Amino acid sequence: MRIVVDAMGGDYAPQNVIAGVVDAVKEFEVTVALVGIEDRVRAELSKYSYPNDRIQVIHASEVVSMDDSPVDVIRRKKDSSIAVGINLLKNPGYDAFVSAGNTGAVVAAATFYLRMIEGVDRPGIGLLIPQVNGHAFLIDVGANSEPKPEHLYQYGHMARAYMQSVMGVENPTVGLVNIGQEEGKGSGFDKQAYQLLHDKVPGFIGNVEPNQIFVGKADCIVCSGFVGNVIIKMSEGLMESAGTVLKREIKKNPLAMLGALLMQGVLKGVKKDMDYSEYGGAPLLGVNGIVIKSHGRSTPKAIKNAIRATMREVEHNILEKMRTAVVA
Amino acid sequence: MRIVVDAMGGDYAPQNVIAGVVDAVKEFEVTVALVGIEDRVRAELSKYSYPNDRIQVIHASEVVSMDDSPVDVIRRKKDSSIAVGINLLKNPGYDAFVSAGNTGAVVAAATFYLRMIEGVDRPGIGLLIPQVNGHAFLIDVGANSEPKPEHLYQYGHMARAYMQSVMGVENPTVGLVNIGQEEGKGSGFDKQAYQLLHDKVPGFIGNVEPNQIFVGKADCIVCSGFVGNVIIKMSEGLMESAGTVLKREIKKNPLAMLGALLMQGVLKGVKKDMDYSEYGGAPLLGVNGIVIKSHGRSTPKAIKNAIRATMREVEHNILEKMRTAVVA
Repeated sequence: MRIVVDAMGGDYAPQNVIAGVVDAVKEFEVTVALVGIEDRVRAELSKYSYPNDRIQVIHASEVVSMDDSPVDVIRRKKDSSIAVGINLLKNPGYDAFVSAGNTGAVVAAATFYLRMIEGVDRPGIGLLIPQVNGHAFLIDVGANSEPKPEHLYQYGHMARAYMQSVMGVENPTVGLVNIGQEEGKGSGFDKQAYQLLHDKVPGFIGNVEPNQIFVGKADCIVCSGFVGNVIIKMSEGLMESAGTVLKREIKKNPLAMLGALLMQGVLKGVKKDMDYSEYGGAPLLGVNGIVIKSHGRSTPKAIKNAIRATMREVEHNILEKMRTAVVA
Repeated sequence: MRIVVDAMGGDYAPQNVIAGVVDAVKEFEVTVALVGIEDRVRAELSKYSYPNDRIQVIHASEVVSMDDSPVDVIRRKKDSSIAVGINLLKNPGYDAFVSAGNTGAVVAAATFYLRMIEGVDRPGIGLLIPQVNGHAFLIDVGANSEPKPEHLYQYGHMARAYMQSVMGVENPTVGLVNIGQEEGKGSGFDKQAYQLLHDKVPGFIGNVEPNQIFVGKADCIVCSGFVGNVIIKMSEGLMESAGTVLKREIKKNPLAMLGALLMQGVLKGVKKDMDYSEYGGAPLLGVNGIVIKSHGRSTPKAIKNAIRATMREVEHNILEKMRTAVVA
């Protein structure tokens, strides 16, 4: 299996990306094609020892910054690591593309160069999120901030196919994020999305209120990219702030400091359970190729985990599963 | 000061409401007018001893359920505790109305019976939310799920007036919830709201990403009612789930159990810091009256706190402050 990785994407590129890639090829049965400015990539790679035949470097002269507009990337940065990397997927032997770079640019380039699969109008980014028991698949978390109601039922189909094939859930349930549980809640958009999900998607259980997202109410949770992005960024911010407040209070109290020491393992475990970066990467579903978006602030470990998650998606042939799920 | 309280509103009414009201009149310098089915209210009141002249009972024959549609409440349940209670505010000597009942019904009845203040087109529900240091005021958390861009700058004005008058923040900053920090992020709605806030609201600092909401990026945070409702329900759900996972893990490990015992005070303190129900009530701003929405699952303590918060809002004359802020 060969996975294409954007060497220049993310807040700490190329260092973190390359450190993660080196760990991945040492640990997993995978070959990586690193796309980026060749000199910089080779200079960074020279810091490590690894099986040389497992990392290939492909030159791309341009770098997409986090501020570049998606449209400009397609029009003007045609030799960027994102554009070059995604185009490689058209060739046999390149199985998937992973980037921690500009989300809008990855979505635009994947849509433009790979095109959509039949029956899907707009791509969506999905993410496995932690539950009190297990995981749920949330889609869309930021590809499509102003979707039409039809896009949401298409997300429902793709989310079910993902949970079935990758997570082995036999008959996944699907819920719609809404501000009330009853049918008829929310705006016109929400009502139309509800109706389409109800009519077209097996396993649809109705609205899910945001406080129910983490308790395992549904295996698949669909929403607009704006709302999904709010959900994941909120969780991140809230857990961080709660951690900051907790640390501050612990420092004021010697007994609590001792308590925290005794609880250290458990506290770290819970943080790990609730930490998305551990899961490694969010698939962009609906395009003709396996494209994975990793967090912009990805650590080497998150990059390695994203590569492992990508391998699992290639092994489970999720692209073919998406095609069948949506057309059926 | 006399505060009107909806005796029949909330998941645990009238029990929790009345228990909270009794505690409030014992502890604070306040008189309460309890509105609801007189027999049931008096039967519940008879369980307590309290200064009799501080609680007045006003009969209203109908009860609004959590499932009643807001429009139906206006059209058909004209003798509900919500309608009767809100109408009391038109008389001198009734300073504010508090309800833990159906949010949509409270918003509809307040808008219909009290009308809007000059310069505000739609009411918004604001909520003080915890920060790493201090609080921010988030508006709208669920009155207006599909606002127009103009509603958001009106919320900005009202939020500033609230933070100035009630919380004593001299020159409050204002941010717009958006999925990216840069100007030009989000949908057409977000861009228009950004421009209006930029042009019309002093202290506007631009977009605030959801992971920045709890770190004190802005004193006032504006968003659509859908997004604000997602934010508060998400926080509630996430903190609960993290607590569940933490408790489960602690039970598996005797040392962690001891640690948790030593940390008990600190953990409770952090939970209290992050717990909205402690703050007691969310003001419905923009209508011609002081109307406070308390959480549907309010405990007696949350009701008591809502009454205390309402007293503070009456003392600071927030209605007059809203009028001046918006027209200026």
